[in-house]
Amino acid sequence: MALPVSRFPALLRIASRRYPALRAGPILRARTGWEQSRSFSNSPTWQIRTKEMNDELMKDLKVNQARFMEDIHHTCQWGTGESWGDKSTETGMSRLALSDADKSARDWFVETTKALGCKVTVDAMGNTFAVRPGLRNDKPPTFVGSHLDTQPTGGRYDGILGVTAGVEMLRVLADNWTETEYPVGVVNWTNEEGARFPMSMVSSGVWAGSIPLETAHNLREVHPGTATMKSELERIGYLGSTPASYEAMPMAAHFELHIEQGPLLEMANKKIGVVTGVQAYKWFTVKVKGRDTHTGTTDLKSRADALLTASKMILHSHRLATANSALASTGILNLKPGSTNTVPGEVTFSLDIRAPKDATVAKMKELVLRDFHKIAAGEDVEGSNHGCTSGLPLTVSITEDFDSPATTFHSDCITSVRQSAHSILGPNMAMEMTSGAGHDSVYASKRCPTSMIFVPCRDGVSHNPREFCKEDDCAIGAQILLQSVVRFDRMRDERRISWKQEPYTL
Amino acid sequence: MALPVSRFPALLRIASRRYPALRAGPILRARTGWEQSRSFSNSPTWQIRTKEMNDELMKDLKVNQARFMEDIHHTCQWGTGESWGDKSTETGMSRLALSDADKSARDWFVETTKALGCKVTVDAMGNTFAVRPGLRNDKPPTFVGSHLDTQPTGGRYDGILGVTAGVEMLRVLADNWTETEYPVGVVNWTNEEGARFPMSMVSSGVWAGSIPLETAHNLREVHPGTATMKSELERIGYLGSTPASYEAMPMAAHFELHIEQGPLLEMANKKIGVVTGVQAYKWFTVKVKGRDTHTGTTDLKSRADALLTASKMILHSHRLATANSALASTGILNLKPGSTNTVPGEVTFSLDIRAPKDATVAKMKELVLRDFHKIAAGEDVEGSNHGCTSGLPLTVSITEDFDSPATTFHSDCITSVRQSAHSILGPNMAMEMTSGAGHDSVYASKRCPTSMIFVPCRDGVSHNPREFCKEDDCAIGAQILLQSVVRFDRMRDERRISWKQEPYTL
Repeated sequence: MALPVSRFPALLRIASRRYPALRAGPILRARTGWEQSRSFSNSPTWQIRTKEMNDELMKDLKVNQARFMEDIHHTCQWGTGESWGDKSTETGMSRLALSDADKSARDWFVETTKALGCKVTVDAMGNTFAVRPGLRNDKPPTFVGSHLDTQPTGGRYDGILGVTAGVEMLRVLADNWTETEYPVGVVNWTNEEGARFPMSMVSSGVWAGSIPLETAHNLREVHPGTATMKSELERIGYLGSTPASYEAMPMAAHFELHIEQGPLLEMANKKIGVVTGVQAYKWFTVKVKGRDTHTGTTDLKSRADALLTASKMILHSHRLATANSALASTGILNLKPGSTNTVPGEVTFSLDIRAPKDATVAKMKELVLRDFHKIAAGEDVEGSNHGCTSGLPLTVSITEDFDSPATTFHSDCITSVRQSAHSILGPNMAMEMTSGAGHDSVYASKRCPTSMIFVPCRDGVSHNPREFCKEDDCAIGAQILLQSVVRFDRMRDERRISWKQEPYTL
Repeated sequence: MALPVSRFPALLRIASRRYPALRAGPILRARTGWEQSRSFSNSPTWQIRTKEMNDELMKDLKVNQARFMEDIHHTCQWGTGESWGDKSTETGMSRLALSDADKSARDWFVETTKALGCKVTVDAMGNTFAVRPGLRNDKPPTFVGSHLDTQPTGGRYDGILGVTAGVEMLRVLADNWTETEYPVGVVNWTNEEGARFPMSMVSSGVWAGSIPLETAHNLREVHPGTATMKSELERIGYLGSTPASYEAMPMAAHFELHIEQGPLLEMANKKIGVVTGVQAYKWFTVKVKGRDTHTGTTDLKSRADALLTASKMILHSHRLATANSALASTGILNLKPGSTNTVPGEVTFSLDIRAPKDATVAKMKELVLRDFHKIAAGEDVEGSNHGCTSGLPLTVSITEDFDSPATTFHSDCITSVRQSAHSILGPNMAMEMTSGAGHDSVYASKRCPTSMIFVPCRDGVSHNPREFCKEDDCAIGAQILLQSVVRFDRMRDERRISWKQEPYTL
């Protein structure tokens, strides 16, 4: 239902006084006590245009914290996980991609954004784009995006925060009868976690043209299931007819609000991370081969102990990371044959190497390759054999499984976020940082200006039921996300001519 | 069929000339070209008594190597495992206790020993005792024993060698019409490996009174089966009516021939290990608790990396073993949650500590307990943190699961083996050693004089399809086993009076 401006004479007067830039027509709606969403398909005329807003007016486009938290927890009824506290909201999440729980959350997203006047498009990967029209609908929308799927023992914020903050953005724009220069949208990317179908960020990867559609469709769910992404997309009714492609669904920009998933903001006592890029990383599989022998009958010098050797390698990778300001981590380790009284003859482990710069990751790779072979052969590498008995030589093979070069986000998006953070929090509550984890924004950034906003999460814990972000911090993040989109929208209009040189569709 | 002495006048003449101790009657049969076993139930009068044998004559009680190898490989038709070479005998074994294959091997053992004139008794654990009468059958037999079950990916020699060597002993005694002073026997112990029913040496343990019958009967086969030892004993017809007890089936001694399962004999270029005892060992479960965190978003100093910490502990346990002339081994390691991009928050690993002396194992335990807690807390222990970034503290809990104090074998049995080895091979081909592994002889030694004989196996490899013992070495081992039993039998007779002071039933 459209509301006549005449019902808000007082507000109109206040707005006109506070925001001299406003001309005829624009109005700021009360932000409290107004629960009904305006369906803007019924209201062809906007009340305020973003290009007309100054900094003060943008600040008044305010996120409704209570409503926002209600949305987050409302969606967490589907796929509720392990409880860690007394409150009903103190649980983790277990909402694997394309499960029944995921379908319910998706249905909510579609219904809610449609009710807020959006046109909803589902592509061939189930990526769901809700677009709110702007003044110039011949140009691609400025998007906000993240994901509604979770890890099997995940939390309530990773991904969910970003999508629901997009919905809250739509609600605030609707509340305030705001007209953007260009359309704005919210996208829910499919299977970002890679937890059910083992390829993370797979659907934004298909959209960006980095991963073939067939590869993605044929991904089989992890043991013990047999479903594929395609069969599950069909089953839950989210196999869309629109091609999963940046050409079929172009974006002018992609902003993503996310919990930091690390402790840096909390430790620095900052509220917002202005994310300037994503660090580079490579994943390796390391296989150490020795010889199975009896623990009781084989003296130390007659052993080719694959686990002892792997232990030296894991420790050494940590030392290399320390020396090179990089990260090295082993999250998976399997050994054979796995008996208390048999020295393991084979150990396979993962090695995840990260650093802000590609060159650092490349150097770490070189050092790991050099030193792991030496360690396997029994050579001492910086004290690795100190106090040890020399055993028999082993062999090692190292396979590079995945390479994600460093991503640098777009300066215009970063500027929008930085200005929004400074405007809302002052200059001392935000810090520039690099994302340690991959996100859909990595693939989005290959096809449009992109950046991210981080908010602190308790103890830096994520991918864990205890993952937690304070209500205030959720709301601050959503507020800065909203303002960043508005600033970017305004910037698009201001810089229409100069941007023609950019490789992006504007 | 009994053979008249008159058919071997030449042999009798030779024997009388070579062995002046021989009086009327004794005869040595030709050792080649004589394939028919004599069933001694048909031949009440023996041709030679062991007490009448001197060293030279004992040497002529010769193992038939070809026949012995045929027995070994014949029994390996039941439960044949993975092939590692071109020959039909170049395979491993997969004969789990109380399986159909194990039943077939048992049936062969019963039939063959019965045909050789033995009385066969099966006890409540399926332990199968084949006893060949001697001159004085009111006293317990001198036993040879081992096991016919194997690891799931085991070899053709571990256990099998010892039982078939016992059968060959019976064949040689029969061939040579030899009468022992006391009965001699061969025992096949059930489920020595503990591979199917997870308690190794369980049935000799019940016999010795160290493990309750009910505990053993209720052992459930390892995942994914549901059978118990008792149900499987019943199913294959080996749940005997004789109590599984050293009281119901007393032994005068227990000799066991076994492959070394380690490389020491091979490295020292010796043919026989005179085993003087079994080293002490303790098994521990170590649980390290840290915190799951994202590998990309958590800097090194904010981690409580349970796998990095476990790696330091495994390396440190190896250093402690080196410093204390002990063994420390980790054969099992499990971690949670097990994802390439999650720092493991929990690692559980096994720790197997061994040394010839109980005091050394006790000291190792003390050092492990002290140092693992320090390592978990983040302290540097002898350079364990060299080059590392200090992270957050972790916790560790250490549980002792199993304690096997050092076993010292009986000097009379050891002497029998040593003298036999010196007599057959000369003084330089045998070495005294401690068994690193547990064997049924550990439990046997609690109730009767016991010792073991080791023969080399290729590269010290065991519990592996490639486990291999040369034919010559198998035969030498069986030869020394046979002579040790004869020497012990003679010793029993000679020392009947002095032995009354011993705690054993003679």
